[in-house]
Amino acid sequence: MQIALDAMGGDLGPQELIKGALLALEQDDLRITLVGDEGVLQDLLQSASASQTLLERLDIVHAQTVVDMDENPVDAIRKKKDSSIMLAFDLVKSGQASAAVSAGNSGATLAAGVRKLGRLKNVARPGLASAFPTLKGPVMIMDIGANVECRPLHLYQFGVMASAFSKLYNVTNPRVGLLTIGEESGKGNTLIKEAYNLLQRSSLNFIGNVEGRDVFQGDVDVVVCDGFVGNIVLKISEGLAEATIKMLREEILKSKLAKLGYLLARPAFDNFRKRVDYAEYGGALLLGIKGIGIVCHGKSSALAIKNAIIGAVEMERLKLNDDIARELAEGIDGVAEGI
Amino acid sequence: MQIALDAMGGDLGPQELIKGALLALEQDDLRITLVGDEGVLQDLLQSASASQTLLERLDIVHAQTVVDMDENPVDAIRKKKDSSIMLAFDLVKSGQASAAVSAGNSGATLAAGVRKLGRLKNVARPGLASAFPTLKGPVMIMDIGANVECRPLHLYQFGVMASAFSKLYNVTNPRVGLLTIGEESGKGNTLIKEAYNLLQRSSLNFIGNVEGRDVFQGDVDVVVCDGFVGNIVLKISEGLAEATIKMLREEILKSKLAKLGYLLARPAFDNFRKRVDYAEYGGALLLGIKGIGIVCHGKSSALAIKNAIIGAVEMERLKLNDDIARELAEGIDGVAEGI
Repeated sequence: MQIALDAMGGDLGPQELIKGALLALEQDDLRITLVGDEGVLQDLLQSASASQTLLERLDIVHAQTVVDMDENPVDAIRKKKDSSIMLAFDLVKSGQASAAVSAGNSGATLAAGVRKLGRLKNVARPGLASAFPTLKGPVMIMDIGANVECRPLHLYQFGVMASAFSKLYNVTNPRVGLLTIGEESGKGNTLIKEAYNLLQRSSLNFIGNVEGRDVFQGDVDVVVCDGFVGNIVLKISEGLAEATIKMLREEILKSKLAKLGYLLARPAFDNFRKRVDYAEYGGALLLGIKGIGIVCHGKSSALAIKNAIIGAVEMERLKLNDDIARELAEGIDGVAEGI
Repeated sequence: MQIALDAMGGDLGPQELIKGALLALEQDDLRITLVGDEGVLQDLLQSASASQTLLERLDIVHAQTVVDMDENPVDAIRKKKDSSIMLAFDLVKSGQASAAVSAGNSGATLAAGVRKLGRLKNVARPGLASAFPTLKGPVMIMDIGANVECRPLHLYQFGVMASAFSKLYNVTNPRVGLLTIGEESGKGNTLIKEAYNLLQRSSLNFIGNVEGRDVFQGDVDVVVCDGFVGNIVLKISEGLAEATIKMLREEILKSKLAKLGYLLARPAFDNFRKRVDYAEYGGALLLGIKGIGIVCHGKSSALAIKNAIIGAVEMERLKLNDDIARELAEGIDGVAEGI
C-alpha cells in the first residue's frame, strides 16, 4: 500500500514530517510518497538516521509550491495546482496512492480532497471527523468544521460516516448521539429536531440526544453535530485543556512542596497527557470522498503524523468507504435528497 | 436591600440554600426573603446555628408548591402559580425584593422571570450570561442557553447586556468578541456574518471574531454567541473539566509515589480547583428583564448561593439595568428592530 504525505505542510516543517513517515514505515508494511520540494527532501533524507531498508520504501514526488497556512483555501487550490497538497491528492486520484495525509492548511486540504476526488455516491456533504479521548474509549465527533451550515440529511449522513470511522477503534454497533442542549427529543433548534427524526428512523444505533457534558463520559461512540458547533467544541476543548494545564502549573510553581510533589507525581501526569494527547489520535478524517484524506493538526509531531498514516492504512484495509457507500445506498425509507 | 431566595429549588435541598443565605447576610448588609414551605423552613432555621442578629434579617414567604427539576418549564409556570420560584419573582414585581435567586429548574426560573417581570425596554430577547474563569480575569459568555435560535440583533444585544455585566468584575471598556470558527471577518455562518457587521457598527468595544481556544486565554472580556452554541460551550467545559480531573486521579492512583506526590501538591490542586470552581462565580444572570434574576446551578453549594446573592446585590447597586436600557435606547444608526 502506498500513502502520499504532503511533506511541506505543517508548523514544524518537513523534518518532523519525514520523522513521522519513518516511524510509520517501521511500524507497518507500506510505502510512502513524500510530496514536496525535491531538493529540500533529498537533503533531509540524506541526513536522516534511518536504515536503508526503510529509505527504500520512501518515494519523492516533486511539488513546485506550498499552500501557506494562512492562505485562503479556495484561492490557493485554484492558483497553486502544483502545490504539495494538490499533487498528493492527484496521486490518490490516479491510483498511485491510497490516501493523502497533510498537516498543512486544513481548509486547503479539505478543498483539495473534495475537488480532486469528488464525493462518494449518495454523500451530500463530505465532512471532517475526529476521535477524542473520553473516560472510556474514544468518541468520534463529526462534523468538526467542514460544513458550517447543514441540513438534517447532512447530520444523518455524518452519523453514518462517523459510525464507519469508529470501526478503526474496534467499536461494533457504535452508539450514535445527537449533540444538543437537552436530553429530551424536543430539545434543540429546528435543525436538531428534524435530524432527530431522521436518525431515529435510520438503521443507525441512535441513542438520542446527548449534551456537552456527556461527550467525555465515554457512553456514546459517535457524536453528530454541524461543523460550526463541532469546530467550536474542538477549539473549546483544546483551549480549556491548555488553560487547565497552565493554571495548574502556575499553582504548583507557587510552592516548593507542591513542586516536589509534582515531580513525584510526574509519571502519572505524563500518562495522563499521553491519554489525552491529540497526537495519539492522528488527525481528522475527511470522510465522504472517493478516496482517503487525512487532515492533521498544524502542530502535528512525528508521532501524530505516524498515527495519521497508520490510520489511513487501516481505513483502506477495512474498506470504510465501502461501508459508507453501502449504508447510504440503503438510505432511510421515504426520505428524499432534499431534506 | 431585600433579595428573594427560592429556598426549595436545587439538588442539595433547603438546608444548603439557607446556609448560603446566612453566609450572604454575614458578608453584606441586606435582608433575604426565603420563599418556600414555611413549616420546613422554620424547622431548619430553628436548628441552624446562626446568631439572632442574622436570623432577624431573614423573612419567610410561604409557597405551596415547588417546580421539580425535570418538569417542563412552560407547563410548570402555568400550572404552579404558587410555586416558590413564581412567588420569588412576584416579590420582585411588587417591589418587595430587588432580585430573585433560584437554584431550581433553570428553564422555569428563566420563564418565570421573563413572564413575571417582562422585558426591559428595547430588549428583543432576554438571555442568560455567565462568568467563566480564564488564565487572566473572568470572561462573560452570553447567551448560555435561553435562546436556541437567534437573529443578528439578538447577538448584538447580548454583547450590550454582557458588557454591562462585566462591570460587576470591575472591567472597564470590556472587549467584546463574537464566537465563531475563524478569526477573519468572513468566517462563520450567516448569523455570525450579519452579527459581525452589526457589532462593528455599534458603540461596543468590539474586537472581532474569537475562536473557542481564545475563550479561556483571558484576552476577551465578553463572548457573544447564540444560546444553542453557548449552552454547548458551557456543558462541554463542565464535562471536560470533570473528565480531566477523573482521568488525572485515575493515573495518580496507579502509583504509590504519584499518590505521595499528589498529597504534597494538594494545596496547589485545591487552589486550582478554587480558581475554576463555578461556585465562585455564583450562577448565571438573567439579563434583559425589568428586574434581577439569578439562575444558579442545580448543584449549587452554600458558597455558590452566597456569591449569587452578593452578585444580585451588586447588580442592583451598580444599576446595570439602567446601563443596558441607556445603551439600547441609543441603538445603532440605521438599524431597525427586525434584523
